[in-house]
Amino acid sequence: MTADIDEQPAGYARLLSAEYAAPIARVAAAVAERRPRHVVFTARGTSDHAALYGAYLAEIRLGLPAGLASPSAVTLFGARPDLSDALVVGVSQSGGSPDLTEVLRAARDSGALTLAVTNAPDSPLAQAAELSVDLAAGHERAVAATKTYTAELLALLMLVEGIRSGDGTLPAEERKTLAALPELAARTLADPTATQLAPRYRFAAQLVTTGRGYAYPTAREAALKLMETSYLPALAFSGADLLHGPLAMTDPDVPVLAVVGSGPGGQAMREVLPRLGERRADVVVVGSAEVEGATRLGVPEVDERYAPLLDILPLQRLALALALTRGEDPDAPRGLKKVTATR
Amino acid sequence: MTADIDEQPAGYARLLSAEYAAPIARVAAAVAERRPRHVVFTARGTSDHAALYGAYLAEIRLGLPAGLASPSAVTLFGARPDLSDALVVGVSQSGGSPDLTEVLRAARDSGALTLAVTNAPDSPLAQAAELSVDLAAGHERAVAATKTYTAELLALLMLVEGIRSGDGTLPAEERKTLAALPELAARTLADPTATQLAPRYRFAAQLVTTGRGYAYPTAREAALKLMETSYLPALAFSGADLLHGPLAMTDPDVPVLAVVGSGPGGQAMREVLPRLGERRADVVVVGSAEVEGATRLGVPEVDERYAPLLDILPLQRLALALALTRGEDPDAPRGLKKVTATR
Repeated sequence: MTADIDEQPAGYARLLSAEYAAPIARVAAAVAERRPRHVVFTARGTSDHAALYGAYLAEIRLGLPAGLASPSAVTLFGARPDLSDALVVGVSQSGGSPDLTEVLRAARDSGALTLAVTNAPDSPLAQAAELSVDLAAGHERAVAATKTYTAELLALLMLVEGIRSGDGTLPAEERKTLAALPELAARTLADPTATQLAPRYRFAAQLVTTGRGYAYPTAREAALKLMETSYLPALAFSGADLLHGPLAMTDPDVPVLAVVGSGPGGQAMREVLPRLGERRADVVVVGSAEVEGATRLGVPEVDERYAPLLDILPLQRLALALALTRGEDPDAPRGLKKVTATR
Repeated sequence: MTADIDEQPAGYARLLSAEYAAPIARVAAAVAERRPRHVVFTARGTSDHAALYGAYLAEIRLGLPAGLASPSAVTLFGARPDLSDALVVGVSQSGGSPDLTEVLRAARDSGALTLAVTNAPDSPLAQAAELSVDLAAGHERAVAATKTYTAELLALLMLVEGIRSGDGTLPAEERKTLAALPELAARTLADPTATQLAPRYRFAAQLVTTGRGYAYPTAREAALKLMETSYLPALAFSGADLLHGPLAMTDPDVPVLAVVGSGPGGQAMREVLPRLGERRADVVVVGSAEVEGATRLGVPEVDERYAPLLDILPLQRLALALALTRGEDPDAPRGLKKVTATR
């Protein structure tokens, strides 16, 4: 898992290189030409969180309604929604789960433009889709996905910005910002704070993660990593949903990891933090925002749109370090296999 | 909270009476006439789980792509997705949260057909929407929503089946099934098993709920009730997503409430139960399915489409009884107010 985590800066550089950026741009141009009216994502587990990021991007950057499909409506209940106006995107590192392949096949039959984003370009999912993007992240050794997750995030960002530009290519300013990403990721991973923070949670019975907007997928993915590697029940909420009920559960014994960026999402989280303070929750702030008096996992400042590509890195480190602190083997979580086949 | 819970059979009967069914049928007919191409739900907290049920219904019963919108894309990041083909449904008991009202207003500006489902027909949400359905559930006394949740479920079911029939009215067979609902709900609530089960969780540090398809919203809502009233961190997963990672976290100290019906969703859960067994999880099965050797919260058998209207009832009873067992006040959870305003 350490090796997978450490490969992420190189993975960003690879996807951004001409060899891999060019096919992504061709796919983006093909999507732009077809002018879908809305976007439906389908994914499971870690990839579901990348899909959630893709849905925010599609709504905010493309002005397209976007949502996540429940595969079971199709696979269990035989729903055959008319998706002829839609772009349907399946996101999966293995491309091997039968339910996602069935959803993409049914969508294609109903006239949707289908796209697979996967680390296995010969997988059933990629074959079922009309268009396909290769994450080129290399073999992921640990069961808990790390480098394939961030590759999914970057591929979806490149796709959306390419669709936005119309011809698939990234505008010069976007290219410039993204070019700095591998170095920023390396700097983030070199910071030892996350690893040093792990003992704090040695005896935690559960944990809450929260964020708003682009940061919400980060909160979800961090929670899943902690559950997979440290077996720590971790509950993820959007900052707004937290106030609609689960806040009652927080107290000094429920640690909270709050992802707080420097844009509108982080600004909205500043209404959540005092409410957590009233409940005397133990809050650690993750991200680029300076929050007075808070323990922080700092991350270099970037626009919130890019922040998910960096904010998850110290949280992966934390999950790994906590698993080791607890005497667990993060490479082989109990009860899990690398490819999960659900239907 | 006891009084709210006990009023649910009468609430079902009221919504099904001609006085309230007729306006719902008129709204359904108006929607059918406009032929939306897809459905977008927006909601928070408990109502989000009713919206999730609505999304399953729209996909399976209407063949319309359906999803849940993230309000923050609109309210924080200024997204203005083109929703001119969409039916946008805001679900909220109070109709008072500014973010949902803003989402509906923006949707209406972009040409969407907008619909508010609320217990407050004069609320900002109802006024912002072109169409509105009154849940007529009466004043809800407890902070934790119970009778407004089930009223939302039934109203969404009546709307979807009315849209499906085309003229807004329910087919005779549907009417017959629904007519039995108040009596089935009363019978479910009269069963003392859920209350008797509460001491089992007196010292639980956390809990997992799970279900698939129509039962997944029930799992989500049960988890929220337990968090709101008993401050018990409760993690809800679709049965499929549970296998994609969180399964690792389960062990004999993590109790699991599995919603298992008698249809395709319950059938799929039968692949999840043995995996939980391997992890020696403490599983209690909720629903109409007979599962050999399992401790059960039994519920009368109905088609899985109707099961959410019954399955949640013993889980509300359990949340209430557990709160009392733990010495908490379920009517006034710490840190919460009845109307939560988020933006």
